[in-house]
Amino acid sequence: RSSMDSDGRPGFKDFPYASPPIKDLMIDLISTVENRLDSLLLPCTLPQDVQYFENQSGTAHASLLLRSGAPSSSIDFMLSSWLHCELPTGAALNITSLSSYMNSSTDAPHLVIEFIQSSPTSLVLILDLPPRKDLILHPEYLKTFYEDTQLEKQRQVLDKISEAQLYVSPSLYIRSVFSPTAVVLRVDTSSSGGDRLEQILRDDVSNAAQEVLNTWLSLCALGEKQDIGDDEKACLKKRDSLYKSKSIETDIGSSLPRMFGQEKADRVLEVLQAIL
Amino acid sequence: RSSMDSDGRPGFKDFPYASPPIKDLMIDLISTVENRLDSLLLPCTLPQDVQYFENQSGTAHASLLLRSGAPSSSIDFMLSSWLHCELPTGAALNITSLSSYMNSSTDAPHLVIEFIQSSPTSLVLILDLPPRKDLILHPEYLKTFYEDTQLEKQRQVLDKISEAQLYVSPSLYIRSVFSPTAVVLRVDTSSSGGDRLEQILRDDVSNAAQEVLNTWLSLCALGEKQDIGDDEKACLKKRDSLYKSKSIETDIGSSLPRMFGQEKADRVLEVLQAIL
Repeated sequence: RSSMDSDGRPGFKDFPYASPPIKDLMIDLISTVENRLDSLLLPCTLPQDVQYFENQSGTAHASLLLRSGAPSSSIDFMLSSWLHCELPTGAALNITSLSSYMNSSTDAPHLVIEFIQSSPTSLVLILDLPPRKDLILHPEYLKTFYEDTQLEKQRQVLDKISEAQLYVSPSLYIRSVFSPTAVVLRVDTSSSGGDRLEQILRDDVSNAAQEVLNTWLSLCALGEKQDIGDDEKACLKKRDSLYKSKSIETDIGSSLPRMFGQEKADRVLEVLQAIL
Repeated sequence: RSSMDSDGRPGFKDFPYASPPIKDLMIDLISTVENRLDSLLLPCTLPQDVQYFENQSGTAHASLLLRSGAPSSSIDFMLSSWLHCELPTGAALNITSLSSYMNSSTDAPHLVIEFIQSSPTSLVLILDLPPRKDLILHPEYLKTFYEDTQLEKQRQVLDKISEAQLYVSPSLYIRSVFSPTAVVLRVDTSSSGGDRLEQILRDDVSNAAQEVLNTWLSLCALGEKQDIGDDEKACLKKRDSLYKSKSIETDIGSSLPRMFGQEKADRVLEVLQAIL
């Protein structure tokens, strides 16, 4: 694929603003997803002006890729995005994400992978399979997806990075979304010098992100088909619907108006909400 | 109340091994509870050998106080405990807790206050109102008990203590229990010198613990009576039952055998499980 469309816009998979290790990792992750899921994902049908958009002054750029799951799949849709915004400080904010939302043919967890880089030495990192059931009421769900997998091992590896500390989202809702094995870290390498953040991304984060994605692919996206009863299906649908709209509202709805202006933000949210 | 029973055993409210600020705080908290709830709590009916027990070599001592809620109350029972154990290192482990478990006449949150001190400079601190509903499925519950209260403000105050860092329980189940405003911190003052931990307990923790307790008293234990439907009641009962047995199993079941021997531990757990 060429690095620019014929009209000069960057393609989604160019990640023109992400730091090199995040760009390489995202290309790897998306290629893993496309190889393993193949025709289970339908082509992106977002309108051109939502697939790529920028603000009037050209200081903010973003691209979205949304692929719905095929009717036979357990995936509602996958949403991937990158967002670049020059900050008044001279630094730039780069947010890169890959998320998957499941449909009610399964109760298996969703997927969230997100990198929020606000300077060459500062990163917020989220890797998780957000549960779709109350873990207190469903201890067998906790066992299947979290206790019996390698997710906690990955979390512990990243937790040991001396520059990393647990990150607490300002949104109480977002805090409630994550599983007990979620990687939700802030990495600050401003005192470590050199390209330490790049090293952490290549040595530790890339491996953990691949493992989380592989766990999700094997156990959730390509896991055994389940028999979900009608009552449970209705409950999953209601919960997923709240999760989708609240996640996108909190994540995208709060930052887009500031970065791209209200009109552009409204247009993007309107298109997304019609799909949810 | 005298500091010793006639047979020389310490009374529950003597807290004979807790550090002075924790002893003072616990006496305050229990007195607040008893004044505000008064006859809504029934007297403790635990057998004497479970109200106070020690190990054969006299290096471990513990006391439990369990008061059931009156039939008209929204409290199932309150459980308070202290536990002291000499460590091979020469230091001592002191665990002091005050928890309340609600009944199904309300969906209001439980209460957990716990101090785990393993040296004069090391403390794990837990203050929370654990939710009784899935917060993703019930955003109005998140709003009522967490977004619209002062709990997040208290959490932020304690989070700013420079010697404090977020504590991650080894149990994935215990991690899942807490609310998004839970205070779950490890405080290590070994590099601060002097009586810095005592100062933190008196200046910051005491106030936060009182605020969390007052929020729980006003909003949960003495809050407006609710109309809980039969289906919801059944769901709360099932969830609470799992929460109670899992919490006590993880908390007490894992430490008692090591500290007091299997026989004593079995006796205490048997009595508690009969009440749950």
